[in-house]
Formats: sequence, structure tokens, C-alpha cells
Amino acid sequence: MHTKPNKALQTFPNPAPHRDYQIHMEIPEFTCLCPKTGQPDFATLMLDYIADKSCVELKSLKLYIWSFRDEGHFHEDVTNRILDDLVKATRPRFMRLTARFNVRGGIFTNVVTEHRKKGWKPAPKVELAEFSPQSNTRG
Amino acid sequence: MHTKPNKALQTFPNPAPHRDYQIHMEIPEFTCLCPKTGQPDFATLMLDYIADKSCVELKSLKLYIWSFRDEGHFHEDVTNRILDDLVKATRPRFMRLTARFNVRGGIFTNVVTEHRKKGWKPAPKVELAEFSPQSNTRG
Amino acid sequence: MHTKPNKALQTFPNPAPHRDYQIHMEIPEFTCLCPKTGQPDFATLMLDYIADKSCVELKSLKLYIWSFRDEGHFHEDVTNRILDDLVKATRPRFMRLTARFNVRGGIFTNVVTEHRKKGWKPAPKVELAEFSPQSNTRG
Amino acid sequence: MHTKPNKALQTFPNPAPHRDYQIHMEIPEFTCLCPKTGQPDFATLMLDYIADKSCVELKSLKLYIWSFRDEGHFHEDVTNRILDDLVKATRPRFMRLTARFNVRGGIFTNVVTEHRKKGWKPAPKVELAEFSPQSNTRG
Amino acid sequence: MHTKPNKALQTFPNPAPHRDYQIHMEIPEFTCLCPKTGQPDFATLMLDYIADKSCVELKSLKLYIWSFRDEGHFHEDVTNRILDDLVKATRPRFMRLTARFNVRGGIFTNVVTEHRKKGWKPAPKVELAEFSPQSNTRG
Amino acid sequence: MHTKPNKALQTFPNPAPHRDYQIHMEIPEFTCLCPKTGQPDFATLMLDYIADKSCVELKSLKLYIWSFRDEGHFHEDVTNRILDDLVKATRPRFMRLTARFNVRGGIFTNVVTEHRKKGWKPAPKVELAEFSPQSNTRG
Amino acid sequence: MHTKPNKALQTFPNPAPHRDYQIHMEIPEFTCLCPKTGQPDFATLMLDYIADKSCVELKSLKLYIWSFRDEGHFHEDVTNRILDDLVKATRPRFMRLTARFNVRGGIFTNVVTEHRKKGWKPAPKVELAEFSPQSNTRG
Amino acid sequence: MHTKPNKALQTFPNPAPHRDYQIHMEIPEFTCLCPKTGQPDFATLMLDYIADKSCVELKSLKLYIWSFRDEGHFHEDVTNRILDDLVKATRPRFMRLTARFNVRGGIFTNVVTEHRKKGWKPAPKVELAEFSPQSNTRG
Amino acid sequence: MHTKPNKALQTFPNPAPHRDYQIHMEIPEFTCLCPKTGQPDFATLMLDYIADKSCVELKSLKLYIWSFRDEGHFHEDVTNRILDDLVKATRPRFMRLTARFNVRGGIFTNVVTEHRKKGWKPAPKVELAEFSPQSNTRG
Amino acid sequence: MHTKPNKALQTFPNPAPHRDYQIHMEIPEFTCLCPKTGQPDFATLMLDYIADKSCVELKSLKLYIWSFRDEGHFHEDVTNRILDDLVKATRPRFMRLTARFNVRGGIFTNVVTEHRKKGWKPAPKVELAEFSPQSNTRG
Ligand SMILES: [Ca+2]
Ligand SMILES: [Ca+2]
Ligand SMILES: [Ca+2]
Ligand SMILES: [Ca+2]
Ligand SMILES: [Ca+2]
Ligand SMILES: [Ca+2]
Ligand SMILES: [Ca+2]
Ligand SMILES: [Ca+2]
Ligand SMILES: [Ca+2]
Ligand SMILES: [Ca+2]
Ligand SMILES: [Ca+2]
Ligand SMILES: [Ca+2]
Ligand SMILES: [Ca+2]
Ligand SMILES: [Ca+2]
Ligand SMILES: [Ca+2]
Ligand SMILES: [Ca+2]
Repeated sequence: MHTKPNKALQTFPNPAPHRDYQIHMEIPEFTCLCPKTGQPDFATLMLDYIADKSCVELKSLKLYIWSFRDEGHFHEDVTNRILDDLVKATRPRFMRLTARFNVRGGIFTNVVTEHRKKGWKPAPKVELAEFSPQSNTRG
Repeated sequence: MHTKPNKALQTFPNPAPHRDYQIHMEIPEFTCLCPKTGQPDFATLMLDYIADKSCVELKSLKLYIWSFRDEGHFHEDVTNRILDDLVKATRPRFMRLTARFNVRGGIFTNVVTEHRKKGWKPAPKVELAEFSPQSNTRG
Repeated sequence: MHTKPNKALQTFPNPAPHRDYQIHMEIPEFTCLCPKTGQPDFATLMLDYIADKSCVELKSLKLYIWSFRDEGHFHEDVTNRILDDLVKATRPRFMRLTARFNVRGGIFTNVVTEHRKKGWKPAPKVELAEFSPQSNTRG
Repeated sequence: MHTKPNKALQTFPNPAPHRDYQIHMEIPEFTCLCPKTGQPDFATLMLDYIADKSCVELKSLKLYIWSFRDEGHFHEDVTNRILDDLVKATRPRFMRLTARFNVRGGIFTNVVTEHRKKGWKPAPKVELAEFSPQSNTRG
Repeated sequence: MHTKPNKALQTFPNPAPHRDYQIHMEIPEFTCLCPKTGQPDFATLMLDYIADKSCVELKSLKLYIWSFRDEGHFHEDVTNRILDDLVKATRPRFMRLTARFNVRGGIFTNVVTEHRKKGWKPAPKVELAEFSPQSNTRG
Repeated sequence: MHTKPNKALQTFPNPAPHRDYQIHMEIPEFTCLCPKTGQPDFATLMLDYIADKSCVELKSLKLYIWSFRDEGHFHEDVTNRILDDLVKATRPRFMRLTARFNVRGGIFTNVVTEHRKKGWKPAPKVELAEFSPQSNTRG
Repeated sequence: MHTKPNKALQTFPNPAPHRDYQIHMEIPEFTCLCPKTGQPDFATLMLDYIADKSCVELKSLKLYIWSFRDEGHFHEDVTNRILDDLVKATRPRFMRLTARFNVRGGIFTNVVTEHRKKGWKPAPKVELAEFSPQSNTRG
Repeated sequence: MHTKPNKALQTFPNPAPHRDYQIHMEIPEFTCLCPKTGQPDFATLMLDYIADKSCVELKSLKLYIWSFRDEGHFHEDVTNRILDDLVKATRPRFMRLTARFNVRGGIFTNVVTEHRKKGWKPAPKVELAEFSPQSNTRG
Repeated sequence: MHTKPNKALQTFPNPAPHRDYQIHMEIPEFTCLCPKTGQPDFATLMLDYIADKSCVELKSLKLYIWSFRDEGHFHEDVTNRILDDLVKATRPRFMRLTARFNVRGGIFTNVVTEHRKKGWKPAPKVELAEFSPQSNTRG
Repeated sequence: MHTKPNKALQTFPNPAPHRDYQIHMEIPEFTCLCPKTGQPDFATLMLDYIADKSCVELKSLKLYIWSFRDEGHFHEDVTNRILDDLVKATRPRFMRLTARFNVRGGIFTNVVTEHRKKGWKPAPKVELAEFSPQSNTRG
């Protein structure tokens, strides 16, 4: 039986609500239609959030992303709309969505938008030395 | 019928004016002439802005960029001039323009310039862990 | 007015039929549906061919690729089918199609298939030193 | 309900048996145990084959790979054994298996092994210009 | 004789307790099971900490990581649990754990979580110019 | 005083005509116009040749490339035309021209074309181990 | 007629003195002599500055860099000396010079030095999402 | 005559003591022995410092690094010890040492440690746009 | 108890002697001394072989490599000598050894040497499309 | 005492004259002058050879390369001239020299030239699977 695209985002309880910790998701298969020309648009979405009581469920997120396949949306608009839906479903302490769209007319467009829960403040960041991924353990 | 280069930048209303969100555009096909030698110069432009009431329209931006093809400009000057035009057209809360010029005389030159709307202040940035693009999902 | 997906490939006369020369096209926005699950599949197509009397027209190729968006196809099958359609439209001396599909179930699949015109033989290749792209001329 | 690891490889009929075409699969999540120390070993497998009557089914391949998780095997041995199983299941015209194992004792080991059907000969390869993946279409 | 997976983390005395200094470990061979499907999950763990009286012993860390091989855990949960275990064993001044999980359903998930000892404050960071690894000294 | 674009290619005598040796040039700043839309097209040209009596002079090559800036040409046609001009000017033993055009309509196009002097045969190539550029001698 | 190395740096008036904007130059062909051994040293210089009334002229900068070709200098000394000369010529609001020297004795040395005009303060930086160069528009 | 390893670090007077400037050294050929197993360990050392009256002399640094070749040391310990020796020899305003050790038991370990002279404060950093090395000037 | 360096190479029976298959090993921690200056030299060794009756045992190979740590050898000589030892121990059908030495005097040296068993002939290679590692499955 | 540039190349006896084996050297610090403009040119040289009775001595090669620092040479000419000198000094079975020159006038030039000893024939190459450098053993 076929699964189907679905705008309803499922959540599950945050397993570590006593902490501010970051969940990062990368969604490389977003596609919708251009409302002006009707032609397909493609983007990679980067989602970062600090959950409060709920986390977004992975499989429902996949079906949600799929639900845009036959819809027409402008770049700036659809990015803010997806953020709004994710915020409504999970009520996070913090959420940032980055959309990297495929080149059109020789120009690349990315949109970055975020939501902060009222009254929430991030702990001051502990700055450590950072290293690019180094664990090349295979041949 | 041929389209033509055009200095007039078109805009459309910002779809999410209630938020400060970032629009990033990369324009790799900028070319103008060197005012000293008459020879072609090439650059990649990186545009970042936080819109207020207007966003720059993609197609008019392409024609605007094209309009420099037969004009002579110095690196430092043309970068500031393009910023000025974009600011006049969109009146953004914030705008940064980065121009990476092709090597000349064995030396690489980049110019970075920006505009801030009076009285506008960025929200303090929430510092998250960052990851280089990882969604390698194709073979 | 909206353009539409279209299975009919257009061609134009080969401008240099006196030579065997290679045309390489990279089509990163191929998507169709999985016939088993109904879910979207994504691939990058690489097309290489040596034209005989006809070349494939770029815009019709784009609409042709788009026409698979709502169809269900297996990886091995759709790659051979696209090759068949391109061969029928252009009757090339040689054509190779490479499809790099997105990861599914943790496994990456690529398919490479080709057509050779009867009696056609490639000239023996002149082996030169090769250099990875080096013309980094911008900052 | 849980799926389970399974040594039985499933196949489906080759959709284009009239052609020699290449199927390439990359399987980055192979793990088994070291028969000497009992500790986990990790490898990435690269499978290339030219099918005859049958292709290996993707999901059963995943379960087959999983079936090695609790077994002890030496690098050189397990690579040849997996090739043998795949050959028995699909009877391909040609098959090559490359296993890139994770570093052990500061040394990286790869094993490459292949099977050729009796009497089968590859068509002489048409050498084209090759390009590293260039379809960078997103921002 | 075979070694065995072991949840008990060993420690040794911090050789430089008079200083706040950073220990960074990268653990690319983490695998556990998905509690929903029973199938293997894979991740790379990045551990950064500032030791107080104890450092985690390398070999016991390896056996501890191995101990998850046959256990079922959700991504968000297991990352916080490993942090908890490491904190309990070493009582560090600061610890950050980053887990980069393999793609599932076309989506990449990373989790970043940290612990700060009560009353501990990092010295303000001295910001230096940073250079990507440059010591390419071999051919 | 301004230099000007110029279709006339200058040459100088081959300093080592007793040998077949390879000259490789990379020309990243080619631009012309699309004959259908009038809009600018961009390409990187790779030129490889084995000179006979003449080598192409670098500065005249630059002016020659510049001369296409205001002309309309199709991809397949202009690549073959430039090859023809270079062959006419230098009468080489062998010449290969590769044009990598910028993305248009989401599709990347490269064209590779070559000329062989009648009766000329390359010496059989001595196959050596190859190494990617390794002389990283700076910090 | 030959040009000659020249220690005299030329300047031109800053075209946008009403703004603090950044000029970045990369100079990969610096060479001088080691004062101890007399042997050639090589470095890449990175120059970043915020001009006040004057900008450094590109061609004179090239001749200035060339002027070190026959001089003996230690790494730490020559970097500070070039900064001093550039500051004297352009009187910038801010200037940073980074010298990345080639490996000597198996050790890589970089030197970073800077000048700040008295009383000048940088505007607080607006922190935006950053993206590595993405405008891959050619094949 | 053979040179010899030598624990005595030589210094020379800082040529620009009126400034805080950064000296960065990368030392990729550090090797010592594991005190537990006696087997060789390998690391790359990154040294960053702001000199006060003295700079470390390059050749003596090389001999000092060599002096660890036959000594047994733990990762966390040897990194702090080298920092101590360098601080004692040069009495810098600031010094940071980063040691990136080779993988052992499938785990990568880096150690970062630093020294700050009492009373010394870094000038607030001027944040500029940063560019990855771009001066690709060779073919 | 400490293990020790050891020139005696151990072998084990080839588990698939009925096939010509390739074993590739990468040994990045080779170090010996320069016979002229007494200073340490470093190299990465790449070993490729087609076993006949015996394979080289991984742990003894590690101890063998270690045995060069206190010996003086020229680059060209030591590479041929290691090949000779490996051939004597394993009597392979084919063996190739590549040594990539660290830069000395600003020059990088690699040495590639091989042994072929008398009368052995490789099967003609089946040329397939090759893909650079694509299984990026983690975030 | 200062060393000096020197056109006289020193050699030493080939330690393995019974074999055809490859010596590869990469020389990234070649610089000479442009005979037309007098300005410095830069190149990376790649030298590959199969020695007969003599190998080129590393230190004399460095001084030889240095000897071009004050001489004027065209790209095509100097590459062939260096090959001639190296052939005269070492009388190799085979030698290939590749010179990658820095960009001039926006164009990159490489020259590849080679010498074959009369009557010498390379053994047919054994084609193995190749792997890009994988021994990432450090953090
Ligand atoms: Ca940082
Ligand atoms: Ca990919
Ligand atoms: Ca090749
Ligand atoms: Ca560039
Ligand atoms: Ca090839
Ligand atoms: Ca992209
Ligand atoms: Ca290297
Ligand atoms: Ca090859
Ligand atoms: Ca470098
Ligand atoms: Ca940042
Ligand atoms: Ca490109
Ligand atoms: Ca930064
Ligand atoms: Ca280069
Ligand atoms: Ca190949
Ligand atoms: Ca990965
Ligand atoms: Ca490494």
C-alpha cells in the first residue's frame, strides 16, 4: 500500500526536556512548483531547533515535505510558511530554518528564518576549538 | 523577442515583514569593463539582506546585473554603487554586498560593503553548532 | 502562461556533422515516483553523446525530464527507457546515459547504459595529460 | 513489526537484458566481527555488475548485508564470500565487489574481487572526456 | 581471548588539573538498533570536554561504545544518555557530545547536547586567526 | 590607450618542434550572447594541443576570446568554430578544445571537439602512476 | 620596455569614504631570500583593510611585492615591515596582513599582524548565516 | 656531520614587540611512544602564540620536536608538557598548542591547551569577512 | 608487556587462491632516518598485491614497518627493499609498492616499484564507469 | 655560509637498476622571469622518471631549480630546456616533465614534455583499482 503526502506533522515527547540541546536535520529532497511558470523548483532544507516539550517525528516530517510537491510557492514565502508549521506543531524554544534553492536565471537564492519562544534565552555559548570532520576510518 | 539589460530594479512585497530573516543571493556572472584598459573584468557577487517592506525581484536583478556588461568601473567603486542601487530600490533593514573579482596582475581582490537602516538592530544571534553541507544523497 | 511537461523531444541539425565530437549534459533535477511505495525518487542524470544528424534541443530536454515527475519507475528500467527515447529522437552515433539515484535504505544506486550506432567506430583516443579544473580566477 | 536480517537474496528480472549496462551500488553500513578479537569491524562495500537475467533486489540486499552483523570474518575472506553469494543469486555477466575496511592498527585495507561469466566479453569501451560532478545547482 | 563490550567507563587522573584545556575525541564507529524497526542505525560521535579530576580512558570508551551494538535507542534519547554516562564517570568541568546519524528516510539528523559543572565559567576565548590544516608534507 | 578585441590570432615558432609535447591552456573568462534570447552565456575553455611549427601567442589568444563578447552563438556551434580558427592559425599536429558552459534551464552543457593532422600518430602513451597535486608547501 | 620592481606604493582616493567597507587582497606570488641561508622563501600574503582617504593601487602593489625578490628577510620581520609600508602609504582605518610561508624544515609558519587607527572603532558586526561558495554555474 | 635531537629551545628577539601579532606554526611530524604498549604514536602539532620579548627559533624547534621520538608519553600529558617547555623558553603574552593525534582503537583524540601571561589582555578582535584560500594562480 | 618492532613478516593462507583479486593496504605511519643527516624521514606507503598462496598478516606488517624507525635509508633504496622483503615473505602473483615521502628541501618525492611473478598475466581489465566515493550517509 | 644557485646537476647510482620503477618529484617553487616584460613567472614542476644508471640528487636539483630565478624564459621553451638538462645528467630510460604555470592575462598554461631512451619499452601496465588517499589517521 502506498504512503501519501500529508501536511499533518506528528510529534513525540522530548526525551531530555531538562536541557537545551540542539537537533539538526538536513532535508535534501524538497521540491515544489514555481507559481509564476509552473515549473519545478528544488531546495535543500536545514532545520535546527531546541525542543521544548515536543520533537518532530521523522517519518511525518518526510510526508510533510512531500506534500509541497504539487504546490506553487515563492522562495521567500514557502520558507517562512514551513517554519510557521513546524513551530505550530512543536512549540520549540528556538527554531531556525535554512532553505538553499537551486539556481534560477543564473542566480542562487538561500533563505534563513527563525523563531524564538518568548522569554527563552540561550545559555552563553562555550567556545571550543573546532575541527572539521576527521574520522576518516575507511579506505 | 530579446530581453534587454535594464538598470531598473523591480521589487515585490516582503511576504514575512513581521520577522527579521535573511535572504542570500549568489550571482556568479557579473562582468564589466576595466576603465583603465577597456578589458573585461569578472566577479561573483554575494548579496545578503534583511528585507523591510520589499524584496528584490529575481528576474529584474538578472537584467540589472547584465546592464554593467558594457560599462567601465573600478572594483571598489562598482561594488559600492551596486549596493547603493539595491538599497534605493528595496530600502532594506540591512544589506551586505560581497564582490569577488577575478585575478588581475596575479592579485585577487574582494570588496565587502554594507548598509544598515537607521535605528535597526539585529537580534542577538543564537549560536548553534554548524555543520558543513552533509546531505549527500545521490550517487 | 505556464509551460508544461512534454515527452516530445525536439532536435536541431548538428552544426558540425563532419566531426565526431562529444556533447556532455548534466541534469541534476530528475525526479519520479517509486512504483512500489509511491514515494518520490531523485537522481542526477549525466548524458554524453556523439551526434549524427541531430542534436537534442535544451529546452525540450528540460520539459521531457519534467514529464517523469508524476510517473512510477524502477531505477534500472527508467534509465534504459530515457536512453531509448533520446536515441529515437536523435539517432546519435553514440550515446551514454548515467543516472545517479539518491540513497534508499542506506544504499546508493547508479545505472550506466549506452547505445552505439551500427557500424560506427570511435577514432582511437589521443591520451593527453589531464588536469583537474584549475582556472580559479576569482577571490 | 520488526524486519530481520536474512541471508536469502531476492532478485527481479533484468528490465533490459538486450544490453550490457552497468549497475553500481554503494553500501556504506557493512559491519561484522573480527574472528580474532571479537571486536566490530566496519566497511563500505562498492558493488558493480552487469546483469544477465536477474537483478538483485534492493531491500533483500539490505537485509543480507545486515546478516553479517553478528558473524566473525577476516577481511579477505568475507569479501570473496559476499561476491560468491551475489553471483549465485544473480548469475551476472560480470560482477566486481570492492570492500573498503576501517583502519585497524594504523593500516587501511581494501579488497577488490570479481567474477566473469564464461564466454562473456565486454564491448570495447568508448573513451569519452570525463568531468567530475558539476551540477551544483543549489545554494 | 576475546574482549567484550562493557558499559563501565574507566578513568585516569587529569595530568594538568591546574588548567582548563580541551580534549576532543571523534568516534566514528557507533552503531545501535532502531527501537521501532529493529534495524541498525549508525552515527559518528564527537566528544569535547574540559576535565576536572578525571579523564576518560580510551580503551574503556571503545568498549562502552561497543555496548550499544545490540540495544534499541532513539537518536535524541541515546545522545543524551551517553552524555549522562560520561558525565557521571568523569565529573568534567564541561562536556559537549555531538552525534551525527546516518541518513534515514532521506533526512539527516544530528544531535548536540552538553553539560556544565555548576559554578564553572570558561575563560573568555582569545580569538586568533584560524587556518585549515595546511601541513601537507607528503607526496 | 585601450586594447581592443581582435579575431586575428598571432603565433610564434614552436621552440621544440623535434618533439611531440602537450600545451594545455585554461581560459575561464569566455562569454558570448545566446542567439535565441540575446542574454549573456559564460563558459570555461580548456585547450590542449601538440604544436607543429607554430604555437598560439598568449596575448592574442586573450584578445581573440574577448572578440566573442558581443556575438550570438549556440554552444555546439561556437566550440567547433573556435577550434577551426585555432587550427587555421597554428596548423597543429593535434588539438582538442573543451567548452564547459554555465547552467541554463537547470542543465549543464559541455562540448569537446578535436582536430588531428593527417598522417600524424601519437606515440603510445607511457602509463605512470599519477598523483593528485601534492605540493602543498604553504601554510 | 621592461617594468621594474618598485618600493613606492601608489594610492587613489577612496571612492566611498562615507562607509567602513572591507577590501581583501590575496597575493600568492611573494618571494624573498632567507637571510641565514640565502635561499629563496615563498609566501602567500592576505591583505584586509578598511580604507580611510586612500586605497592602494593594484599595479604599484604588484611592483612593491616584486621588490622583495632579491632581499633577505626573516618571516616575522618582513610581515611587520610590509604592514608598516602599507599603513604609511594609505593611512587606513584598519589593516590586517597575513603571511603564509612555505614549509621549511618540515614546519609551516604563518604570521598575522594588524594596525588600527587611533580612535577608530568597528561597527558591531551583523552576524549572518554564512555559506561556502556555491555558485557552481559551469559544467 | 649528523645533527641531533635536543630539548634546549633557542629564541631570538621579537622584531615587533610594540604590537600584539600572531605567529602560527604547524608541525606535522611529531612522534613519540605509547607508554602502555611501547608502540609509536603520531601527531600534528599546531602552535599559535603572541610573542613578548622572544620568538622561538625554527631550527631548534625542529630538534626539540625530534627529541620526543624515543620517549613514552600519554596524549593529554605530552601536550601540556610541550606547552610548558615553550612557555618557559619564550615567556609569551599568549600561547595555544593543539595536538591532533593519529587514530588509536578507532578513536581520534585532539588536545588543546593554552597559557596566558598574567595581566595580558587581547585587543577586541576586528571581525572581517573571511575567505577560504582563493589564490589559485597555477594550472 | 610491550610489543616490539620485528623484521619477520607473518603470512596466512590465501582464502581465495582460485581467483586473482586485489588487496590494497595503506600504511600512513612509516618513519626512518635520513642516512646523510640522521634526521627523521616520514612517508605513507601504499601496498597493492595479488596474492598467490599467502597473504601478509596485518599485525606482523605493523611491527615490520615499525622496525625501520631507527634505521637510515635513502628514499629510492628503502622502497625497493621493502618490496623485496614483502615479495620474499608472500611470493605474490603481483605486488606494487608506492612510497610518498614528506617534503624535503621544498621537493616532494614518491617512489613506485613493483614485482611480477614469472609467467603470471593479469586478466584484461573490464573497464566500468567509476564514481568517487558517494556514500555520505552521516550528517 | 650561503649556498648558491647552480646549474650543475649531481647524480647518484640507481639502487635498483634491475627494475623499471618510477620516481616522482614535485617542485612547487620554480620561478623565472618573463623575457617580454621582465616580470616574475611562477610554476609548479612535476618530474616523473624511470632511472637507468643514475638518479638525480635532491639537493643539487633544488639548487638547479633556483638557478632560473634571474633568467628570462618563455613557458614552452623553459620546460623543454629543463627536460634536456635532466636527461643529459641522468640518461634515464624514461622522463616526463610537467610545468604548471601561474595564470597570466586570465589564462592558465601547462606544458608536458617527455624523453624516451631509444629501444626502451615500458612493461605493459597492470591495471589495479585505484583509491584516492585514504589514510586519514589524524584528528
Ligand atoms: Ca570559530
Ligand atoms: Ca551526491
Ligand atoms: Ca589518465
Ligand atoms: Ca575562484
Ligand atoms: Ca579516463
Ligand atoms: Ca549545491
Ligand atoms: Ca600529503
Ligand atoms: Ca589510471
Ligand atoms: Ca599551501
Ligand atoms: Ca560562525
Ligand atoms: Ca563550475
Ligand atoms: Ca569567524
Ligand atoms: Ca593552482
Ligand atoms: Ca580508469
Ligand atoms: Ca559519512
Ligand atoms: Ca588526518
